[in-house]
Amino acid sequence: MGLISFIRKLAQIRAQRPDIPGSYREDPLVRTILNRRSVRKFLDCDIKDEEMTLILEAARLAPSTVNMQTWSFGVYNIETWRETFGRSIPFGARRAVLVLGDITRIKQATDIFPNSPLVEYTVSIVNASLAAMNMTIMAQALGIASVMLSDTGKTGFFSTAYLKERLKLPAGVYPLMTIVFGYPKARNVPMPPKFNIEDITFSGTYRQTHVAKIHEWFSLMEAGYRASTFFSSFRAKLSYYRQNLSRSERELRDIVLGEKPKM
Amino acid sequence: MGLISFIRKLAQIRAQRPDIPGSYREDPLVRTILNRRSVRKFLDCDIKDEEMTLILEAARLAPSTVNMQTWSFGVYNIETWRETFGRSIPFGARRAVLVLGDITRIKQATDIFPNSPLVEYTVSIVNASLAAMNMTIMAQALGIASVMLSDTGKTGFFSTAYLKERLKLPAGVYPLMTIVFGYPKARNVPMPPKFNIEDITFSGTYRQTHVAKIHEWFSLMEAGYRASTFFSSFRAKLSYYRQNLSRSERELRDIVLGEKPKM
Repeated sequence: MGLISFIRKLAQIRAQRPDIPGSYREDPLVRTILNRRSVRKFLDCDIKDEEMTLILEAARLAPSTVNMQTWSFGVYNIETWRETFGRSIPFGARRAVLVLGDITRIKQATDIFPNSPLVEYTVSIVNASLAAMNMTIMAQALGIASVMLSDTGKTGFFSTAYLKERLKLPAGVYPLMTIVFGYPKARNVPMPPKFNIEDITFSGTYRQTHVAKIHEWFSLMEAGYRASTFFSSFRAKLSYYRQNLSRSERELRDIVLGEKPKM
Repeated sequence: MGLISFIRKLAQIRAQRPDIPGSYREDPLVRTILNRRSVRKFLDCDIKDEEMTLILEAARLAPSTVNMQTWSFGVYNIETWRETFGRSIPFGARRAVLVLGDITRIKQATDIFPNSPLVEYTVSIVNASLAAMNMTIMAQALGIASVMLSDTGKTGFFSTAYLKERLKLPAGVYPLMTIVFGYPKARNVPMPPKFNIEDITFSGTYRQTHVAKIHEWFSLMEAGYRASTFFSSFRAKLSYYRQNLSRSERELRDIVLGEKPKM
């Protein structure tokens, strides 16, 4: 990528804005939802217990399939995270919530799921994801920033075997992600490169995104990575994932489908 | 369940409230998030295109794993839904968004996922669920009610084979749920019976919910169903699911893992 092309792409990233019609531009709710960004740098300033309670209340009151509430949450501060995992909360955040799909309560109450592991997994993690998003929006409403982690620091579904052992998870509990919370160091975190609405929607039957739009997005991601992390690159990040995927896949098949890894 | 016990349980359901500390009780964002309810009765009153755009903007700007945006959205009004599915939008809603996990864009851009179907599925549906929750909160912020459907009217992951055929979905696209939107007929929809925060959280290692709490929740669900739907019951609903689960499981295994059903 040449320098001019690089600078042009950065300008393109910085110019991105949520598409808010005039009449809603000052609406605080609309703004809160659309201006939420994933934040990875936090102030050295604690979150009040009252605020964490509100964040967990957003999780508790999220919608779920037949109100089954197929989720559990590991709730940590700096000390309890260190006791449990032997290291700091990623990105120096002050609080962390480990989000898990959890089918054990409904299985104890009823025999609705006799032998349908992939449906059980799907139900659990979809509902747990809804709770995760609700927590993140609640945090944003309180001025608290966050980022969802599914890999960094072995905090989510890319490391299910590790988390299952560390947290002593029974069958039917699936580690999904960790959300770390803190007050943001910077305001106005730029939007990462997003597809347009017409690239990701259809009416009637499915329509594929134009391949040129996909390549444009990819090159913006590369430029954005290059600008924000000097020692990394988007390709390096993807390559890291690729190298760890077969382990993650094996571990997920074990925890979800009960398929023991072949030696 | 005796009559007195039934009435007592209904009173218990009606008494449930979000737990909002005094200082946040008037905060419009906190209230919007915690007072959102799934709504199944809508006014005969259309949603403006501008509002649908904001709802889709909330989906577009939701967070996703490495900003991969592994989602697509089928967007329908009354007419286009009927053309596509040959019937009305469930619950007489005015608009519907079919939410799909979609790994095809990232697979076209890079070879990050060579052969890891369960990880690909997980990534896709977790991100798509985050987008779904963000849309629902945005709708609520605009005074628009909604309900997420994964089964009713063959609208989600309980009917993947049907939706794959109907929407002509390629490999790597996973139907998840349909959110139907409309203006609510009633205000103050009661909260369905929820577990308490201490029942669904732990610190350190995993802790199981006390079995008495699970049974209490189950009996409240039974009472709530009996009060709201005369011809149905919570047990009947669960029994309906159970009868359809082996088909759903087979279809999911086909679409996710490429396991062809055994005849």
